[in-house]
Amino acid sequence: MNTGAFPLVARDSGTTIVEIGGVEIGGPELVLIAGPCSVESEEQLRASARAARAAGATILRGGAFKPRTSPYTFQGLGEEGLALLRRIGDETGLPVVTEALEPGQIPLVAAYADAIQIGSRNMQAATLLRAAGASGRPVLLKRGMAATLEEFLLAAETIVLAGNERVVLCERGIRTFDSYTRNCLDVGGIAALKRLGRLPVIADPSHATGRRELVTDAALAAVAAGADGLIVETHPHPTSARSDADQQLSPAELTDLSERVRRVAAAVGRRTSAIER
Amino acid sequence: MNTGAFPLVARDSGTTIVEIGGVEIGGPELVLIAGPCSVESEEQLRASARAARAAGATILRGGAFKPRTSPYTFQGLGEEGLALLRRIGDETGLPVVTEALEPGQIPLVAAYADAIQIGSRNMQAATLLRAAGASGRPVLLKRGMAATLEEFLLAAETIVLAGNERVVLCERGIRTFDSYTRNCLDVGGIAALKRLGRLPVIADPSHATGRRELVTDAALAAVAAGADGLIVETHPHPTSARSDADQQLSPAELTDLSERVRRVAAAVGRRTSAIER
Amino acid sequence: MNTGAFPLVARDSGTTIVEIGGVEIGGPELVLIAGPCSVESEEQLRASARAARAAGATILRGGAFKPRTSPYTFQGLGEEGLALLRRIGDETGLPVVTEALEPGQIPLVAAYADAIQIGSRNMQAATLLRAAGASGRPVLLKRGMAATLEEFLLAAETIVLAGNERVVLCERGIRTFDSYTRNCLDVGGIAALKRLGRLPVIADPSHATGRRELVTDAALAAVAAGADGLIVETHPHPTSARSDADQQLSPAELTDLSERVRRVAAAVGRRTSAIER
Amino acid sequence: MNTGAFPLVARDSGTTIVEIGGVEIGGPELVLIAGPCSVESEEQLRASARAARAAGATILRGGAFKPRTSPYTFQGLGEEGLALLRRIGDETGLPVVTEALEPGQIPLVAAYADAIQIGSRNMQAATLLRAAGASGRPVLLKRGMAATLEEFLLAAETIVLAGNERVVLCERGIRTFDSYTRNCLDVGGIAALKRLGRLPVIADPSHATGRRELVTDAALAAVAAGADGLIVETHPHPTSARSDADQQLSPAELTDLSERVRRVAAAVGRRTSAIER
Repeated sequence: MNTGAFPLVARDSGTTIVEIGGVEIGGPELVLIAGPCSVESEEQLRASARAARAAGATILRGGAFKPRTSPYTFQGLGEEGLALLRRIGDETGLPVVTEALEPGQIPLVAAYADAIQIGSRNMQAATLLRAAGASGRPVLLKRGMAATLEEFLLAAETIVLAGNERVVLCERGIRTFDSYTRNCLDVGGIAALKRLGRLPVIADPSHATGRRELVTDAALAAVAAGADGLIVETHPHPTSARSDADQQLSPAELTDLSERVRRVAAAVGRRTSAIER
Repeated sequence: MNTGAFPLVARDSGTTIVEIGGVEIGGPELVLIAGPCSVESEEQLRASARAARAAGATILRGGAFKPRTSPYTFQGLGEEGLALLRRIGDETGLPVVTEALEPGQIPLVAAYADAIQIGSRNMQAATLLRAAGASGRPVLLKRGMAATLEEFLLAAETIVLAGNERVVLCERGIRTFDSYTRNCLDVGGIAALKRLGRLPVIADPSHATGRRELVTDAALAAVAAGADGLIVETHPHPTSARSDADQQLSPAELTDLSERVRRVAAAVGRRTSAIER
Repeated sequence: MNTGAFPLVARDSGTTIVEIGGVEIGGPELVLIAGPCSVESEEQLRASARAARAAGATILRGGAFKPRTSPYTFQGLGEEGLALLRRIGDETGLPVVTEALEPGQIPLVAAYADAIQIGSRNMQAATLLRAAGASGRPVLLKRGMAATLEEFLLAAETIVLAGNERVVLCERGIRTFDSYTRNCLDVGGIAALKRLGRLPVIADPSHATGRRELVTDAALAAVAAGADGLIVETHPHPTSARSDADQQLSPAELTDLSERVRRVAAAVGRRTSAIER
Repeated sequence: MNTGAFPLVARDSGTTIVEIGGVEIGGPELVLIAGPCSVESEEQLRASARAARAAGATILRGGAFKPRTSPYTFQGLGEEGLALLRRIGDETGLPVVTEALEPGQIPLVAAYADAIQIGSRNMQAATLLRAAGASGRPVLLKRGMAATLEEFLLAAETIVLAGNERVVLCERGIRTFDSYTRNCLDVGGIAALKRLGRLPVIADPSHATGRRELVTDAALAAVAAGADGLIVETHPHPTSARSDADQQLSPAELTDLSERVRRVAAAVGRRTSAIER
């Protein structure tokens, strides 16, 4: 790969540590981001956030604008969801990250959230990338379902070129011929992204597997391969979730994941002091 | 596949013929859409449009807002490109179709163009789909690089649900393990889309192959499989094109494609009176 | 692609016409090979062969050794199936092609059949390729489910290097992320193989789609893209077939396919005198 | 997935520990298998075996019959290679595993080796699977490049049904649209195979990545995801190797891998007493 194609994010230009609401990603500390797939209600979000914090997560995730495959399924609470994220984030002391689906939503999302997520379906939406870059907020960029590593790095370059080097890459599984797992977590890709680029790399084992019973093993694999953090879906009652019911972890499962992650992180030389709080 | 998931575009609800500036897609007539990848200049666009019309094309394509993989390559002329499309379209008597990259561009694109294209990278950009649906303009929806047929039909359903049933599906090749061709034209998918859905289906042999010498054979295959039309890139001087230089046809190559398409179309019972003009 | 990697089968060394029992593949005449997925009984094979011949097929296909995914499904009649193929082929005047699964079966298969098929699962089984090459019989080499065009041509090179240039390539669909169709017929690959290599290229629309209602459209696409022939599964009672029940054509459907293929073939300049008999 | 399709290898029938020359795979101990891609000479194999043993490997791998993509590249030393494997294995006290390419080679390979490898290209070669099953030797079955988990388990079922339950599954990366890494290690697949089936599962990070600098990270990921062992290519002088020069580890790199694996294995509760010797 010609790393000259993405000079701003290439490895030889250094290492970037991205700070989100006081939490550093890409430094010695492994970061756990957790929360529900969708913000459904104040109660559901509060329970998820408390479970996340109890498990050692230091950033809260949750979708207010949901990019669903079908127009007939739950599309998110919109601005009401953003407001809930801000309130519950402040209440629990967790900075929040949530997705914007189009450039026009960036100011609104930036007003409520500490970081802006660009989802897999929009990884190559150039105007959205530029708007996120111009917002000044840190950006969590998820890899497209069929995006090559080079395309992923070029998307990150687009954001940085817009004036914002606070970009976190998120490997969330790629689409293959086998649909037993929802996607295939590309651990070689995680290792390669760390060598090719200067940006932090986290992993999303929830979307990578799509199956609750496999999420923790995939999370451990990502950490072993060098991920700087994890973003994990959790819900107080996963099976009744309004989206991604098959892959969200219960609070107890999240705590178990966190404990096991802590041990693997230590084995590869990562601190997890937040998780161990 | 459960066609109940997309009731508005399912086959059993009838057959939709989409009219773009007086040209019907999905009826007995095979439609040829042609033009440059990007609008580069008035001269280049005029030459492309004349070549398209001479070859029997009845709709002009051309990109003003270009969704490029790298932020360092030509991103299109923007509104200037839209104005050129309108002027040259009127001059040559061809309605024009061009891409909008985000919801905020829809009014502008709708003001200049006869139809709005949603590109592969945005096939699941729900807010863009809804905005295009609400615009009243016909929509040319390209299949995502790794979108299943069901996801493709659900994206179309999203547009129709927003109040606009004038949607044309475009199979443009899917991403596989083999990169010799840029993508793989899914001819079985074309045939399946015609059976599963009620919308017209066209094919883009330029992006499907990414290689000039293979475009015509892929075009013939698409027509034989039942496509209602073709969208083909052409440029007066392909090798000096500012984007997609490898896959654009010269005017002579486009004329040859058109002549060969005419024969295969006749063999599968399609009229091509425009092409034969 | 570096065509120097497969000098014996590269295009610049000429054009190979492969003759199987008096039938030429790769010449001006489009060839139809048809027959059941598996040889099940004398009655079933005779009915299939007569239907094939009536539809214009000039070569009979049928599996005696079946490469099944599960060890619990029908594995074929073995040598009894080979003997039936020979008898019914002679009775109907059709040369026969059937698969060998391992080098040790080559002499047996060569003793009964006019051509030896190497299946997709064995495309890179080097010892089998060499044994087939050394047999002196023409070889029908099917593309592996995830084989690149270059790997396909290198497999053919292996056979030719073993002393046998009578190799026919068969594109039978490649595996992608979408499982609505069993595989994806690579029509761009057919066109590319004709340009890169000197060997005849046929297509298998039955395995490429896996759905009876899509087989004919895929067959037409393959012919339009330049295929030299087709290999199609047919069964007197498809739904009761012991293998591939979903994709075999009834005699009436095969006749319809043949008639439609004849017209598309004519449109791309191929003769089909056998089919028109 | 319907686990009733492979009753002999399904998880609910227990857990199988496979013993190869005194080394147990699938028990509490993580197993490291190492050695060169191809056996090239006595000196090269001895150096590789000593490096493997020094790094804690307890089984020696090496190819005598090589399934190469091109017929013009090194195809292995054949029986001479087998004899060298046996001699060096005995000399270093390491049992040996090597590949058989066809049923006819099984007796020869079984005469020299402690375990028989079935390669990715042959995962669905039913007669080879049955012959390996009938040999009585333990079988190391590598996943096909585009094989689903279900097809992989059905291939294992075929071997067990032939009378041999000593089967070790090996995930070695699957083929995707991104060719930066040679394949994509399916860590979710490793976790799933452990839950769906009763057989031990090891990983091949060498073929999964195809890049020396990524092998160790992929190995750590596999162990974290629950693999029972690793099979790693090593060569005294990797860059001059006659096959897979890009992915073989030097002795020093193998020792580093082993040390890092030991720590991650401990973090997920696996013993590595052999590695720690």
